[in-house]
Amino acid sequence: MSLLIRGGTVVNAEQMMRADVLTDDSGKIAAVGENLAAPAGAEIIDAGGAYVMPGGIDPHTHMQLPFMGTVASDDFYTGTAAALAGGTTMIIDFVIPSPKQSLIEAYDTWRGWAEKAAADYSFHVAVTWWDDSVHRDMGTLVKERGVNSFKHFMAYKNAIMCEDEVLVNSFSRAWELGALCTVHAENGELVYHLQKKLLAQGINGPEGHPLSRPPEVEGEAANRAIRIAQVLGVPLYIVHVSCKEALDAITRARNEGQRVYGEVLAGHLVVDDSVYRNPDFRFAAAHVMSPPFRSKEHQEHLWRGLMGGNLQTTATDHCCFCEPQKAAGKNDFTKIPNGTGGVEDRMMVLWDQGVRTGRLTPMEFVKVTSANTAQIFNLYPRKGCIQAGADADIVVWDPEGTKTISAKTHHQKIDFNIFEGMNVTGIPVHTISRGKLVYTKGDLRAVQGAGRYVDRPSYAPYFDALEKANALKAAKAVERV
Amino acid sequence: MSLLIRGGTVVNAEQMMRADVLTDDSGKIAAVGENLAAPAGAEIIDAGGAYVMPGGIDPHTHMQLPFMGTVASDDFYTGTAAALAGGTTMIIDFVIPSPKQSLIEAYDTWRGWAEKAAADYSFHVAVTWWDDSVHRDMGTLVKERGVNSFKHFMAYKNAIMCEDEVLVNSFSRAWELGALCTVHAENGELVYHLQKKLLAQGINGPEGHPLSRPPEVEGEAANRAIRIAQVLGVPLYIVHVSCKEALDAITRARNEGQRVYGEVLAGHLVVDDSVYRNPDFRFAAAHVMSPPFRSKEHQEHLWRGLMGGNLQTTATDHCCFCEPQKAAGKNDFTKIPNGTGGVEDRMMVLWDQGVRTGRLTPMEFVKVTSANTAQIFNLYPRKGCIQAGADADIVVWDPEGTKTISAKTHHQKIDFNIFEGMNVTGIPVHTISRGKLVYTKGDLRAVQGAGRYVDRPSYAPYFDALEKANALKAAKAVERV
Amino acid sequence: MSLLIRGGTVVNAEQMMRADVLTDDSGKIAAVGENLAAPAGAEIIDAGGAYVMPGGIDPHTHMQLPFMGTVASDDFYTGTAAALAGGTTMIIDFVIPSPKQSLIEAYDTWRGWAEKAAADYSFHVAVTWWDDSVHRDMGTLVKERGVNSFKHFMAYKNAIMCEDEVLVNSFSRAWELGALCTVHAENGELVYHLQKKLLAQGINGPEGHPLSRPPEVEGEAANRAIRIAQVLGVPLYIVHVSCKEALDAITRARNEGQRVYGEVLAGHLVVDDSVYRNPDFRFAAAHVMSPPFRSKEHQEHLWRGLMGGNLQTTATDHCCFCEPQKAAGKNDFTKIPNGTGGVEDRMMVLWDQGVRTGRLTPMEFVKVTSANTAQIFNLYPRKGCIQAGADADIVVWDPEGTKTISAKTHHQKIDFNIFEGMNVTGIPVHTISRGKLVYTKGDLRAVQGAGRYVDRPSYAPYFDALEKANALKAAKAVERV
Amino acid sequence: MSLLIRGGTVVNAEQMMRADVLTDDSGKIAAVGENLAAPAGAEIIDAGGAYVMPGGIDPHTHMQLPFMGTVASDDFYTGTAAALAGGTTMIIDFVIPSPKQSLIEAYDTWRGWAEKAAADYSFHVAVTWWDDSVHRDMGTLVKERGVNSFKHFMAYKNAIMCEDEVLVNSFSRAWELGALCTVHAENGELVYHLQKKLLAQGINGPEGHPLSRPPEVEGEAANRAIRIAQVLGVPLYIVHVSCKEALDAITRARNEGQRVYGEVLAGHLVVDDSVYRNPDFRFAAAHVMSPPFRSKEHQEHLWRGLMGGNLQTTATDHCCFCEPQKAAGKNDFTKIPNGTGGVEDRMMVLWDQGVRTGRLTPMEFVKVTSANTAQIFNLYPRKGCIQAGADADIVVWDPEGTKTISAKTHHQKIDFNIFEGMNVTGIPVHTISRGKLVYTKGDLRAVQGAGRYVDRPSYAPYFDALEKANALKAAKAVERV
Ligand SMILES: [Zn+2]
Ligand SMILES: [Zn+2]
Ligand SMILES: [Zn+2]
Ligand SMILES: [Zn+2]
Ligand SMILES: [Zn+2]
Ligand SMILES: [Zn+2]
Ligand SMILES: [Zn+2]
Ligand SMILES: [Zn+2]
Repeated sequence: MSLLIRGGTVVNAEQMMRADVLTDDSGKIAAVGENLAAPAGAEIIDAGGAYVMPGGIDPHTHMQLPFMGTVASDDFYTGTAAALAGGTTMIIDFVIPSPKQSLIEAYDTWRGWAEKAAADYSFHVAVTWWDDSVHRDMGTLVKERGVNSFKHFMAYKNAIMCEDEVLVNSFSRAWELGALCTVHAENGELVYHLQKKLLAQGINGPEGHPLSRPPEVEGEAANRAIRIAQVLGVPLYIVHVSCKEALDAITRARNEGQRVYGEVLAGHLVVDDSVYRNPDFRFAAAHVMSPPFRSKEHQEHLWRGLMGGNLQTTATDHCCFCEPQKAAGKNDFTKIPNGTGGVEDRMMVLWDQGVRTGRLTPMEFVKVTSANTAQIFNLYPRKGCIQAGADADIVVWDPEGTKTISAKTHHQKIDFNIFEGMNVTGIPVHTISRGKLVYTKGDLRAVQGAGRYVDRPSYAPYFDALEKANALKAAKAVERV
Repeated sequence: MSLLIRGGTVVNAEQMMRADVLTDDSGKIAAVGENLAAPAGAEIIDAGGAYVMPGGIDPHTHMQLPFMGTVASDDFYTGTAAALAGGTTMIIDFVIPSPKQSLIEAYDTWRGWAEKAAADYSFHVAVTWWDDSVHRDMGTLVKERGVNSFKHFMAYKNAIMCEDEVLVNSFSRAWELGALCTVHAENGELVYHLQKKLLAQGINGPEGHPLSRPPEVEGEAANRAIRIAQVLGVPLYIVHVSCKEALDAITRARNEGQRVYGEVLAGHLVVDDSVYRNPDFRFAAAHVMSPPFRSKEHQEHLWRGLMGGNLQTTATDHCCFCEPQKAAGKNDFTKIPNGTGGVEDRMMVLWDQGVRTGRLTPMEFVKVTSANTAQIFNLYPRKGCIQAGADADIVVWDPEGTKTISAKTHHQKIDFNIFEGMNVTGIPVHTISRGKLVYTKGDLRAVQGAGRYVDRPSYAPYFDALEKANALKAAKAVERV
Repeated sequence: MSLLIRGGTVVNAEQMMRADVLTDDSGKIAAVGENLAAPAGAEIIDAGGAYVMPGGIDPHTHMQLPFMGTVASDDFYTGTAAALAGGTTMIIDFVIPSPKQSLIEAYDTWRGWAEKAAADYSFHVAVTWWDDSVHRDMGTLVKERGVNSFKHFMAYKNAIMCEDEVLVNSFSRAWELGALCTVHAENGELVYHLQKKLLAQGINGPEGHPLSRPPEVEGEAANRAIRIAQVLGVPLYIVHVSCKEALDAITRARNEGQRVYGEVLAGHLVVDDSVYRNPDFRFAAAHVMSPPFRSKEHQEHLWRGLMGGNLQTTATDHCCFCEPQKAAGKNDFTKIPNGTGGVEDRMMVLWDQGVRTGRLTPMEFVKVTSANTAQIFNLYPRKGCIQAGADADIVVWDPEGTKTISAKTHHQKIDFNIFEGMNVTGIPVHTISRGKLVYTKGDLRAVQGAGRYVDRPSYAPYFDALEKANALKAAKAVERV
Repeated sequence: MSLLIRGGTVVNAEQMMRADVLTDDSGKIAAVGENLAAPAGAEIIDAGGAYVMPGGIDPHTHMQLPFMGTVASDDFYTGTAAALAGGTTMIIDFVIPSPKQSLIEAYDTWRGWAEKAAADYSFHVAVTWWDDSVHRDMGTLVKERGVNSFKHFMAYKNAIMCEDEVLVNSFSRAWELGALCTVHAENGELVYHLQKKLLAQGINGPEGHPLSRPPEVEGEAANRAIRIAQVLGVPLYIVHVSCKEALDAITRARNEGQRVYGEVLAGHLVVDDSVYRNPDFRFAAAHVMSPPFRSKEHQEHLWRGLMGGNLQTTATDHCCFCEPQKAAGKNDFTKIPNGTGGVEDRMMVLWDQGVRTGRLTPMEFVKVTSANTAQIFNLYPRKGCIQAGADADIVVWDPEGTKTISAKTHHQKIDFNIFEGMNVTGIPVHTISRGKLVYTKGDLRAVQGAGRYVDRPSYAPYFDALEKANALKAAKAVERV
């Protein structure tokens, strides 16, 4: 059945226009234009002057992740359903093999878990160790499984942390395959040292969490990854940039013409680190994630990063743990499972704090919530764009609609919301996933298993440019007498 | 008559795809898609695998400009015809009233001159003085004449230079009107001082030209204009950014989230200041323009500016003077008419040095040669985009075609070419202006008077965001006891 | 009579050592060394382990300045006496001619006023207008009156503001004379525009003062002055740097090797702009000075500027106006006389907030309170240093002594203190001026007229280096065929 | 026997003055003043208007270092003798234990080798591995052996490279001891990767050396070390800063108030990387050292670093290998012993290219050739200063004397000179070491074994400030309900 969205203003990354949008049976957009006629049997949605935008893409989620001895509470179904309720129609989640585990095996495990997803999804695959099989499996994943990005943790020493040697090997291999490398940028050695030192000083509450991961630790790792990428001549994507120090490293590199991308989380844009000093353990622990929330001045820098184009994407690092899970770290902050929710809230937070404040135009909102992600991860214009032929992943957005964010009313399977009580203006009215109306005016109609795995082709367009640039810089031998 | 361009790869700012392009009788693009059928009587152009891109927009030309006692040799017909031969289908020229001259009167004069143009055109209007009539005429130009940008010269003391007072007045007025301010950024007081000093030292040849306008002079003015715009809360566009110092000022501002735009000339990207020390006066004088060409290190910075997005547009400052005109400054470099050509060459120089070197992807090429200009000056998607409904201003580009740039073969009405002898790979094969094939494989079919004046609406989309941001910063009075 | 200071730790800019200090009859230091013998009749001061440091030099005061229709309340006697009570033994005040007034005449007037000073003093002379007589008088002042620095106001439009033309003329002239140029950096045109706009909006209270002089306005002017100095090849000193924007301009220039110096006021380091929103007009108005106090984040930047060496000197801009004087601006903030006190408090504020926080070592404290000023203004090692042959201007400092700063107890002739209630640790115990004990443990023994005018020779050592550098960059003519 | 240096201009870091200098029997300076009387039997040196400056201190040499299978050709006698001929009166060399070797054992070995030194010397000790004995031995070295600085190599993988874990351990331990950490900043993992890659490509000549150690590799490591030091709250000194990337990291940190110091080699200031592409293997190989020489633009940045104070010291990394030794890498650039000479040339190169160009004043020359080093490594004012009580290490400098630097005439025991053919103006006339005239007008009178080991006390003055700053930032636990 097709849908006709009438009377709205279509917003793409580069233009806004009054136009109707028609979807077809296959879940694609059939037409975008003025005064489109409704085919027989089409359902008609009256946009009533609202914005019609590409559904959000969250490039950073961890549904049902086994982590720190427990499992994230939102699974692929509940998590993607919540996403749809917030106008987000696709996630890119992470396959995280244990050290020594086969990448393919891990990938297959995650694929199995994800079959119940209600919205489209794809996977970054983490490289957490190195041997010839990892080298080989990276090739298989790119060539046969639709993976075009690999993740590297520079923190979590004695667990999944990559030393420089692994980074160099993996970045080099990914380049051969036309795949993009991404990093969680924190110097794991320093975090480890600070954790031990703080515990030794008797600081074992959640206030120790940000103290063990100060911004310098993130700035160092971001710069290191950027320099490694520069030396190897490869593109780089830095996840969850949370502070001025990391942003500055990205900004410097970009100003010098390096192809480095940065992602920022909705939470880091609006929540500050005073939460960790809250006397209520539950409240403080609920905010434990890495990198931690930062002091307020960092928020303004992050917004500037989005405004100036030095940060391109927004995400959530959605990874839910509830009170009983967080309690594991009651007497030792290093044991509190890292993570919180947000996949449902991101678009509203971005609109309210980004568009209504004049930091972003509606077109820039589309860029940072979907289009840029789709371009960087080579999904564009299939995703991230309202045009004929694209997937019909659409959100109809009421810029004057209001809502109070709360754990009591959200669909996320977590007993806490870091945006609790925030009154937002600008909310999704209808969400359409592959041509199906899955959320409409508060009514969530998510269907378990309706989401599909999205192959992401390798060699995004910027690879060709980098290859040319690298070729010009190729080393040449000197003839000697 | 309609045209069907078959078999090419359509390149827009955000995507590339194999698609045919069909134009209609009215000079618009009728359809973009695979395997389009040719309407009866349509002319078919076989793109043969070439790129099909929006025609170039040169936002900075001076056709038949009366300047320094002479008149630029390329008029609106010859200049726009040469543009078409190079794949550029629109120019934005400058109306430059004399101090005390009515802005409307000057505008009408330029409109008259431009009627013979072979390609589409529009006008920035310079504010070179201030009184109530200027304030009023700015309103008329925006509301009734399709002008949405005003130009300000921070150099040329005792002629058209604006003091800060005029900048503040004009920027404030333009903001009220939803018009964008642009500046030629050089500190005119310092230039004047250095010119006098150099002449007094006996340095009167063209080598004195760059010595009288060092990069610091441009960096100062760029920063000043940016700060004034910041204080007033208005957007700003800086023309012909030629050096690291000015770029750094822009980059700083953009990194801090300010809406500042920068333009770079094809010449500044590839020609260096050694030309002024050439012992042949004719050669040296032919390169006299302001800002002057810079040392090589600045070129790399300018390229990085384009790559990192801190510079958005490319232009030429096309303003042709031939040998007899340049001879006016034989014994005094300050009397050499400032200007040279390039409107025909820009696209080829950018492709050869930008795309083939891997600095830019083809999509980024489209951004910096047309799409960004169209967006900044609120012409998008009518211009700068290949999509149904847009003006059929198109260039079919052969990325492997080659050519040697030379004054002997170019169409520009000037006896010199600053890119003389440059062998470029990547050339226009066909140029289509408003649906007419005006250049095809070396055959220039430009028609005098075929170009039309393009109204540019005020209030480009970023104005709305700035208004919101300014409102949040509005001053509030304190209640006192 | 000579003094022997026993048992202290002598602190100079480059070294600290246990040593006694002996002064002679002529007001000079006779010897510095261990276990010095007391000459017959010498007064012995037991330093008791305290620090023995060069007396402070405040390079920026305005005693009894006629300004905005009134006269600053601290005159040269009361002001310098208060300085001595705070450990400051020399001031450099400003001669500020009215536009069109002879520089020599103004200088003579100020010299007359200053005869009653209790501590040593010198004068910067402001260039507030330009003609041949100014050019000539600058020469006279340098060659015959011991002036080696000239001041320029980039703000105060329609009063003493310098346009770029005057800056260029005066900077060039000063360079010929071996004199240092200094600037008050605020863009006067923007201040004027904002003042008018705020008043028109009905914002006429002191809260309008900082709103009319935002940091961008200072950053612009600082950068402009720096660029002018760079083009002319001359050194530059920027007074009262109050914000990140101006500091960044200085830092950039210094990092590029330019000889630019920056001064910061004690007040800007610790007082923030919330004072202007105080509902009590008296309180708010008492803080009106230019540049205004800034938001807290700027303070941290200013401290970093001192720590990293990008700011070299500390001052106060001591210019006292009492409540009845401030009341002139009751209904119009632009009429509130600009200025406040601090000459007595600076050293204590710097020690308490600088040394006790670990930002500065005691040697660095000496640098920023006296030695750097003496070097920049070519008074070193006569001033700013404890060594044989130097003037015996000495403060004996108790690093553990405490005090609460208050208008009730200070010696400054002003009914307000911007540091009111600040509990400082680190206070002067004894102050010695030219070998005389003028303050000892709370007992101020300042003598009217005991201070002397200090000639400052032209051509500080950095002039020679700059001349060499300029010579290497000299323009050369090209031989043409 | 004492010496009286008459008629010169004494230059210290902070002042210049006409004064005589008298030394005493114990090798100390007895007096500095005008018209000093010569004691009986004193030798009189007529300075004849020349500069009398502290002898140079080279904080980075490797005499007779066993390295890469050979031993550096200048031993402690020949190397320090050459130093004296160039006006340098003290070196700080490096004890470099093999991994697993006892630090004390290595220290004792080096002390033995150094007994033949002709000039004063001291030792940094390298930490190349970690266990409890290293922790303990660091204490012994500081408390009992006069060591106050430890060196860390971030390059040389599989040999002496420190991973972050060792850096964290060693920096923490040094802080407890009041010792300064220094680093050789190059990312060893990237160097290793590039070496393998280049060799695999068939690039095995010396041109491969700089290609395997590009500036980014140094910039990365410098930033990493700085961030680690920042997190731990400790001071840091970066040896041989050779490129903009590393300098920028230091500059950023210093501008933010961090106590980071940078050293630059005379060679990096004036030699560029074209030497590696010389077709003569011998010539190219003679320049192989790490970091390698850089492209010319880096030189200007390094000079700016010195001028702006972001680099404080100059050194040579003197480590001589002759042609037969360099030949070991004939077919594999990674086997060419890294190092070259310069300890004799540094002062002349710095004067000629630094002072005569106006980049540095003579006082600034003293700072960067001796005083700053003495302060940073806590030798001041015993070394680095001409004042009564200081060691009589003095150079009498003729600013107009000239010389052509050449391996044919130098005293260094190496068959090559990287400054070959450089005509310098500004040369040492007399060098005095501990009161002995050891070099006079070309006559080198160095005495084997006359040099003494110089203890360097721990806790340089900046440690106290850092302790205060760290205390204010100490983590605090939150009381929870
Ligand atoms: Zn992460
Ligand atoms: Zn994550
Ligand atoms: Zn221009
Ligand atoms: Zn122009
Ligand atoms: Zn002022
Ligand atoms: Zn003042
Ligand atoms: Zn080294
Ligand atoms: Zn070394």
